[in-house]
Amino acid sequence: MNEKSFNDGLHADALTHEVTFEDPLTLACGLILPTHKLVFETYGTLNKGRNNAILICHALSGNQHAAGLNTEGRPGWWDHYIGPDKPIDTNKFFVVCPNNIGSCFGSTGPNTINEDTDKSWGPDFPPLEVSDWVNSQVFLMEYLKIKCWSAVIGGSLGGMQAMHWAVSHSNRLKSAVVIAASLKLSAQNIAFNEVARRAIMSDPDFHDGAYLDQDVTPKQGLALARMIGHLTYLSDSALGRKFGRLVRNGDLDAAEKALVEFEISSYLNYQGDKFADNFDANSYILITKMLDYFDLAQSFNDEAVDAFSKSSCNFLIVSFSSDWRFSPQCSKEITDALIEANKNVSYLQIDSDQGHDAFLLPNRRYEDGLRAFLFATSNHLNGAVK
Amino acid sequence: MNEKSFNDGLHADALTHEVTFEDPLTLACGLILPTHKLVFETYGTLNKGRNNAILICHALSGNQHAAGLNTEGRPGWWDHYIGPDKPIDTNKFFVVCPNNIGSCFGSTGPNTINEDTDKSWGPDFPPLEVSDWVNSQVFLMEYLKIKCWSAVIGGSLGGMQAMHWAVSHSNRLKSAVVIAASLKLSAQNIAFNEVARRAIMSDPDFHDGAYLDQDVTPKQGLALARMIGHLTYLSDSALGRKFGRLVRNGDLDAAEKALVEFEISSYLNYQGDKFADNFDANSYILITKMLDYFDLAQSFNDEAVDAFSKSSCNFLIVSFSSDWRFSPQCSKEITDALIEANKNVSYLQIDSDQGHDAFLLPNRRYEDGLRAFLFATSNHLNGAVK
Repeated sequence: MNEKSFNDGLHADALTHEVTFEDPLTLACGLILPTHKLVFETYGTLNKGRNNAILICHALSGNQHAAGLNTEGRPGWWDHYIGPDKPIDTNKFFVVCPNNIGSCFGSTGPNTINEDTDKSWGPDFPPLEVSDWVNSQVFLMEYLKIKCWSAVIGGSLGGMQAMHWAVSHSNRLKSAVVIAASLKLSAQNIAFNEVARRAIMSDPDFHDGAYLDQDVTPKQGLALARMIGHLTYLSDSALGRKFGRLVRNGDLDAAEKALVEFEISSYLNYQGDKFADNFDANSYILITKMLDYFDLAQSFNDEAVDAFSKSSCNFLIVSFSSDWRFSPQCSKEITDALIEANKNVSYLQIDSDQGHDAFLLPNRRYEDGLRAFLFATSNHLNGAVK
Repeated sequence: MNEKSFNDGLHADALTHEVTFEDPLTLACGLILPTHKLVFETYGTLNKGRNNAILICHALSGNQHAAGLNTEGRPGWWDHYIGPDKPIDTNKFFVVCPNNIGSCFGSTGPNTINEDTDKSWGPDFPPLEVSDWVNSQVFLMEYLKIKCWSAVIGGSLGGMQAMHWAVSHSNRLKSAVVIAASLKLSAQNIAFNEVARRAIMSDPDFHDGAYLDQDVTPKQGLALARMIGHLTYLSDSALGRKFGRLVRNGDLDAAEKALVEFEISSYLNYQGDKFADNFDANSYILITKMLDYFDLAQSFNDEAVDAFSKSSCNFLIVSFSSDWRFSPQCSKEITDALIEANKNVSYLQIDSDQGHDAFLLPNRRYEDGLRAFLFATSNHLNGAVK
């Protein structure tokens, strides 16, 4: 890593970095990672006061490539929202997006080498909780010599990280943006994750998670898992608008129908296969369990108001009308708890028929709301960005 | 089969019958079944006028055992609704429930012998449409010497059969009861079916559908398919009420969590495995495709009003508030088309948090509504049941 880019406040646009922390990270499960590596990207410039940094927290299948073009020329998963003059304006903010541990894009996780065994961690990678991701992000923060994030922002599982920051590291962020998230998953959400995990585990190439030792990957199972997930991230109306009941090959007689697919089927199969080529099955299992076990208020006697009681940051809570996995009701529960805890909270519900996926997609009102909130809550910068 | 029970108007309570039709059945796909067998159960007594018969149409995974106890002592899938003094009152009506062709409980289907080859049909069973089920039921009707059903009743795919009866055999039924159904599936519904089919087909024991030849069954894939289906038949709130976020083995520390399951997971896995022991994978694929390709108004230029124009029966359309696979909106579309076509239609929306499954479950208002409709529309019986 080029430390100069941070120490000297130089411009560092869409740079990929990695850092290995030699200090042990004690996990929620009690196990200890003696060292761990994080890969991360940064966009924009860290100012001299080192107080214009925004942490982007990725969701289940996300990675460090949030914005800009990577070496393959592909835009990041939130490129519409992060960049010069975009809602998360890199003319003003220094944006940091790590790939979290347990994931599979270069940071320490099931598909990296366990130094104790000189083999891939595979299924032996310790179970993680959201607090572990946040604690690892604290390491990164200290490494970057950032004392306080200007904002911590995330959607879905990313929103859970933002909430956890606000609850557990209250003095280390000015603002938390919690998008399409919930205090904890519903039984239905858990059930969809369970079916996805079973799809992976029942693939004969799974080998109890030790598939890398066998030089195979459970692609069929992982593709199925993704198809299930993907489908639940979309709304019925968006699917109807996009695909309707069109069949891929035009009008067919009844005998031909048995051989063809509806366009939605073809699309889902393609999405599933593409995902299975790029994601690690053990990571998918591990991270869906993180989602299932997240419960912000669990150690506060199930009182979300108590959980937030020591938070001192500003909050923006965002939901999308057609999101049925993390419904507006979930966001309202977060907002209500924050109001009852006398916190500074804004709530924005966006009309969208895009389902849960809306948090990743262009939407003028969402963009304007995010931009306005970050502007209003960055007084501490006093216009002195550079 | 004991024909006497029908010819003489004798009482025949919860009897299982079978009949093999020697006349050819021309299928929508153009292929012909030279013979086909139907197994069916009957409850109550066919009156001398032979005009008190009700046809019950089962859904995707249903069978002929709708009511009473079978030889294993298990109640039928709609036992709460069919029987003496129940909403479908067998003191008054003679109720017939066949297992439809293409299914797997004794009627001609993928798991029965193809006489041409002396082997199981397996994946070579012809693709079916809802019209094929109805045409086969017409054979049964003629066999039973019933000229006109007092009512044709079905939920989900069963409701689609009831609609098809009303459109294509208008003079052969007095009433149609269409429960939790739709004029055609949405892209989301098709997508869930597609994922289920892929789960089956990617099981290595599937062998392109010829698994019976290999003496195996794709149980893992079929269990997964059922888990996906089952989950979408339930509402989020019903799941929450029933399972919440309870873990099966009580409170656990983080390290233990990786080894245990939420109760909802355990329940779904159990349901999936149980189903896979009893259902045929080729039937599941075949019947989900029937659902996907059903489109009542397709041959009427997509005009449901025109499709219903020649129907002369009374209609009861029923929906359930929390059903998100066949939402109240779908039932309203049916009802609106019937109103516009000047048909005699009643619409009943039932408040329930049970999701699509509600159509099978006890619910006082649903029971009362069904009973009242059948009473009001059976004037032709003139009280002379026996």
